[in-house]
Amino acid sequence: MRLKIAVLAGDGIGPEVTKQATNILRAVAEMGGHEFTFVEGLIGGTAITETGSPLPTATLDAALECDAVLLGAVGDNKFNALPPDKRPEAGLLQIRQALGGFANLRPSIAYTALSASSPLRPEVTKDVDILFVRELLGGLYFGAPRWWDRNSNEAINTMRYTRDEVVRVARVAFELAGNRRQKVTSVDKANVLEVSQLWRATVTEVAKDYPSVTLEHQLVDSMAMHIMNIPRNFDVVLTENLFGDILSDEAGVITGSLGMLPSATIGGAVNLYEPVHGSAPDIAGTGKANPLGAILTAAMILRHSANLEQDAKAVEAAVNKVLDAGYRTADIARGQQPGQTPVSTQEMGKLVHQAL
Amino acid sequence: MRLKIAVLAGDGIGPEVTKQATNILRAVAEMGGHEFTFVEGLIGGTAITETGSPLPTATLDAALECDAVLLGAVGDNKFNALPPDKRPEAGLLQIRQALGGFANLRPSIAYTALSASSPLRPEVTKDVDILFVRELLGGLYFGAPRWWDRNSNEAINTMRYTRDEVVRVARVAFELAGNRRQKVTSVDKANVLEVSQLWRATVTEVAKDYPSVTLEHQLVDSMAMHIMNIPRNFDVVLTENLFGDILSDEAGVITGSLGMLPSATIGGAVNLYEPVHGSAPDIAGTGKANPLGAILTAAMILRHSANLEQDAKAVEAAVNKVLDAGYRTADIARGQQPGQTPVSTQEMGKLVHQAL
Ligand SMILES: CC(C)[C@H](C(=O)O)[C@@H](O)C(=O)O
Ligand SMILES: CC(C)[C@H](C(=O)O)[C@@H](O)C(=O)O
Repeated sequence: MRLKIAVLAGDGIGPEVTKQATNILRAVAEMGGHEFTFVEGLIGGTAITETGSPLPTATLDAALECDAVLLGAVGDNKFNALPPDKRPEAGLLQIRQALGGFANLRPSIAYTALSASSPLRPEVTKDVDILFVRELLGGLYFGAPRWWDRNSNEAINTMRYTRDEVVRVARVAFELAGNRRQKVTSVDKANVLEVSQLWRATVTEVAKDYPSVTLEHQLVDSMAMHIMNIPRNFDVVLTENLFGDILSDEAGVITGSLGMLPSATIGGAVNLYEPVHGSAPDIAGTGKANPLGAILTAAMILRHSANLEQDAKAVEAAVNKVLDAGYRTADIARGQQPGQTPVSTQEMGKLVHQAL
Repeated sequence: MRLKIAVLAGDGIGPEVTKQATNILRAVAEMGGHEFTFVEGLIGGTAITETGSPLPTATLDAALECDAVLLGAVGDNKFNALPPDKRPEAGLLQIRQALGGFANLRPSIAYTALSASSPLRPEVTKDVDILFVRELLGGLYFGAPRWWDRNSNEAINTMRYTRDEVVRVARVAFELAGNRRQKVTSVDKANVLEVSQLWRATVTEVAKDYPSVTLEHQLVDSMAMHIMNIPRNFDVVLTENLFGDILSDEAGVITGSLGMLPSATIGGAVNLYEPVHGSAPDIAGTGKANPLGAILTAAMILRHSANLEQDAKAVEAAVNKVLDAGYRTADIARGQQPGQTPVSTQEMGKLVHQAL
């Protein structure tokens, strides 16, 4: 099996966690006799500093020639004063759009070993296994008109969806639910927003093609509550772009840390893989970053781009094993118990490698 | 002291919880020799059924002549197929706009007696006391253009804010923080949305007039997580309309139930008071509804419209006493302990009355 992966490490803790993820991919390739090649590229704040653009053409060209893109994280407080289209995050939004993946898959799983890291009670998080399917190319993120300049007294963004955009992401959600617990929870604000009415009507239409999957609708405000109160009730959660951004971060609370959450964006020319966490500039270079989000993202590459389901599972099992053995980066050390060992980013990466 | 209160009980559990709230207000009036008069009006689904409009002119006229409006809840699944402007919720949005209150205050407090009702660990919720200040008249809720018809393949909503709209609600937040723990956390999505950039720049400007109050900015996605992980870190949380809708419902998790949360909307011609919970049509008439949200909302009327701070505190103390004595409606009975007594909506109201 051959796979060409663009590695865009980005800002803050991006490079350090990405390094651990590529180490794991190298190990998998070696063990399985696969040929994985890695092409590095600049993105985000680092790219602005070196080239003036948050997504240099060279990066995009390279990415489009690869089978998968592994992105670390983008964002740097240094650029906070700039308008959205000049910031590191613009590079992320541009590459998402250019690669064309519209379905962002964000699993949120409760690891038994980490139940003490969550602010939620263990009986609440027990056995939770949610898969967010977040629409990634529509809504307020990309809607026009969008407008503000510093001297103006008014600003505008546009939330816009077409039926086709909803249909295609809904299909992904129903397909995935078919291989899971047969339930899709679609999130909207249909009691207020016209866009949500289109969303709800369209998802309801699509559901007819999947008679074995149960569809329920939840308002985004209620959902923000339910997902903490009864997370076990949810299987696949389908959302528009911004609601998915908010709810999937919130669901990090279930796992105990955002640092544990992987994501894969599928449906476009090239799949895009990124841990859910941000660039966390405050802890960059301190060895405190949790590489497991990035490593689990690597597992998603194996699953969705390399069709190596067994290897994906092996990486996930290795992560579980290391957690069960009590190794903890700072973010997952809440309520630390005797028998737990604090480790750095790099040590954590090595431990997973060994467990593999 | 005289006070004329418009009571718009609305749909679902609205009437039953509102009744308990007005009982308490009557008791306070009697004990203090005040003259509170109540004027009833139709709103929401009930109003649609009886008059064809979710906010009949008679209701609005009556409300505008009162000193305060107490609203129960609106929303009824029967109208789910209607477009936003024909639904019960339209009545709520219209009266919010007509009364002109732009600052929706939503306290989120952890009651020691209820710590077992929260899915969060007791050590996480301990001593939490957050006050949301949610902008209530702008953003996606009211922005134009807004558009969808059932035959169209596209839908649009507009997120729009003016500097003045941000300034006036920010001032409320800073004023309130000045009487509390001197901290304002402003929530936005400034790394993506132009509207959030206006929001952030304006709030930062306003902060200069309140040098003793600390201002911090949080992105809405991170905030959805932080508020569960470290709720004690927050004092006043300032948000635009939709972000406040989502985050304040989420914060219901801290108290243990949405049924406990009151709200007051100030700054307009007439203050509007409503519990945060919805109409919960599934439990309407079963005696399961928690009237404490409505009763605590009544306490906010005493505080913000009647200037009866002592009486407001007395009502809040009575609620605490009843909770400490172990009385629980269904929603706050999670992890029920020996020594707790399940009670109905009406019994709960009576108990608070007696404790007063
Ligand atoms: C960095 C930011 C633009 C991004 C988003 O909002 O999509 C991030 O929060 C995420 O969830 O991937
Ligand atoms: C019923 C609905 C229109 C309302 C809102 O979204 O504002 C409710 O959720 C609230 O928070 O008061």
